[in-house]
Amino acid sequence: MLSVCLENGVVSVGTHTRPRRPPGFALIRLLFGGICNTDLELQRGYYGFRGTPGHEFVGEVLDADNRRWIGERVVGEINLACGKCEWCTRGLGRHCPTRTVLGIVRQPGAFREFLTLPESNLHRVPREISSEEAVFVEPLAAACEILDQVRIPRGAPVAVLGDGKLGLLASQVLKAHGAEVHQYGRHAHKLRIAAQMGVSTEVAKKLPVAKYEFVVEATGSSEGLRQAVQMTQPRGTVIMKSTVHGLVSIDSAPVIVNEITLVGSRCGRFEPALRLLKNRKVRVDAMISEVFPLKDARRAFRAAAKPGVLKVLLHA
Amino acid sequence: MLSVCLENGVVSVGTHTRPRRPPGFALIRLLFGGICNTDLELQRGYYGFRGTPGHEFVGEVLDADNRRWIGERVVGEINLACGKCEWCTRGLGRHCPTRTVLGIVRQPGAFREFLTLPESNLHRVPREISSEEAVFVEPLAAACEILDQVRIPRGAPVAVLGDGKLGLLASQVLKAHGAEVHQYGRHAHKLRIAAQMGVSTEVAKKLPVAKYEFVVEATGSSEGLRQAVQMTQPRGTVIMKSTVHGLVSIDSAPVIVNEITLVGSRCGRFEPALRLLKNRKVRVDAMISEVFPLKDARRAFRAAAKPGVLKVLLHA
Repeated sequence: MLSVCLENGVVSVGTHTRPRRPPGFALIRLLFGGICNTDLELQRGYYGFRGTPGHEFVGEVLDADNRRWIGERVVGEINLACGKCEWCTRGLGRHCPTRTVLGIVRQPGAFREFLTLPESNLHRVPREISSEEAVFVEPLAAACEILDQVRIPRGAPVAVLGDGKLGLLASQVLKAHGAEVHQYGRHAHKLRIAAQMGVSTEVAKKLPVAKYEFVVEATGSSEGLRQAVQMTQPRGTVIMKSTVHGLVSIDSAPVIVNEITLVGSRCGRFEPALRLLKNRKVRVDAMISEVFPLKDARRAFRAAAKPGVLKVLLHA
Repeated sequence: MLSVCLENGVVSVGTHTRPRRPPGFALIRLLFGGICNTDLELQRGYYGFRGTPGHEFVGEVLDADNRRWIGERVVGEINLACGKCEWCTRGLGRHCPTRTVLGIVRQPGAFREFLTLPESNLHRVPREISSEEAVFVEPLAAACEILDQVRIPRGAPVAVLGDGKLGLLASQVLKAHGAEVHQYGRHAHKLRIAAQMGVSTEVAKKLPVAKYEFVVEATGSSEGLRQAVQMTQPRGTVIMKSTVHGLVSIDSAPVIVNEITLVGSRCGRFEPALRLLKNRKVRVDAMISEVFPLKDARRAFRAAAKPGVLKVLLHA
């Protein structure tokens, strides 16, 4: 089978034998994979990753212990947890200290023709959701995580800072939740996607000061956190969605003087993401910039790294 | 009257006329003032402050519109709010955008023989609390603010990082609340004060990793935040109590990956602080390092800046 490999920053595609299916795991044939900023960061050398990347995918189950999975179109949660520790017992396997993470931490990823994943990680994709759309379930779940962590009242004004993929998903999730969402970005063509879903958008030259009780930081830049803090009202909350590597400097004085809360936010549950896509509350089709065959993964990674590009898909 | 003045980093004591009492204000004779780290930061030039510093004080009311205040021993909240805006209406005058702050922001401070403050800012000091102890009401209220912002269950393990004045007050407040408090510091003689109140203490060589659901950062150093994040469990909370000026660098990756919440925390309500002192749940007497007469304020500031020193008081 074809398999993408990442080593020392170089993306290559090789031929490997099909993975063997361990007990409790499903064997999945890849339909589509999505390249995420995290994949580009792995390419830059973060986490010391080498091997097959990819954690956003949709596939078809070829084999599984539980026969009901066979033939199903599925997406999969990316954290492979122990299932026994305190975190797993609390339903927070995403924080299991011994977890591996699909295509990120000690677990070969989804950018290969066939992959295996624990059956307990799988979610069936309803027929109302196309395979291209289903690739967005994982990042959409990460956007939904905001609402699992922070109580945002319906009707509350919320700012989303940044108009990248995660910013566009976050603004739509918050809009679907009933918040009054204002998104600040730098690209009119990206903001248009959110605007079509009723989000009020602005190509930001100057950001407002102390205006919002809730600010989602999704710029992907090390400057974003400082800007987000500045936009936040006293006693307000900044949701940190940008995984910026290395040190980020913040001016702690306004955080303390204005008693601002900063909430780190990562992966989320898949259920609300699937529901939003099924009910057409979030639209992701306009976010697909390009689709490449798996064998052209190298070109796909190059395309994904270009400024202005949104989601690049791989199809098997 | 004698009045301390801070200008270009130099502390001086001069003679000035008594302040006139505006309507709604009380005229107060100073009994004791306390030098806070913020005063030392003002001396270093933060906030562009010049004038009379001092925001921790206890005094006796000489004159007031409401005659019931006259002769009372009082402490005073330091934020002079408009009383009309949305923040003030919500009982959060401490965040009123047009507030002045006693001895910090556009308001002459308490280090002078006579001062004025709005009657609405005053709290009567119960006779069970000595004047020396009452000076601690303001910083103790700031420590109590933690419990107003974060729901910490009784019995929950909480780490306090830092053994300065605020750290020692925070650990005692949390202990009185019923938390299981572990305080990490560098000075055995300071930690002993908290240990006497039942706090478990440790001169920290190596800090634990991902151990606590709640960590209070009170080191006063720019390194503290990173250390506090490291000590915090996934989904845990760091309460930021150190006002460090300038930029503080944090590694945002663990904050996001572990979904940690950072809560900026500043001034608090005086009521719980007065209650804790009255009921001897918090002991502050051992935290007084030295007492100087007001005329020796210059020496007092020098003493307060020495390493290892805790609270330095001024008496009028």
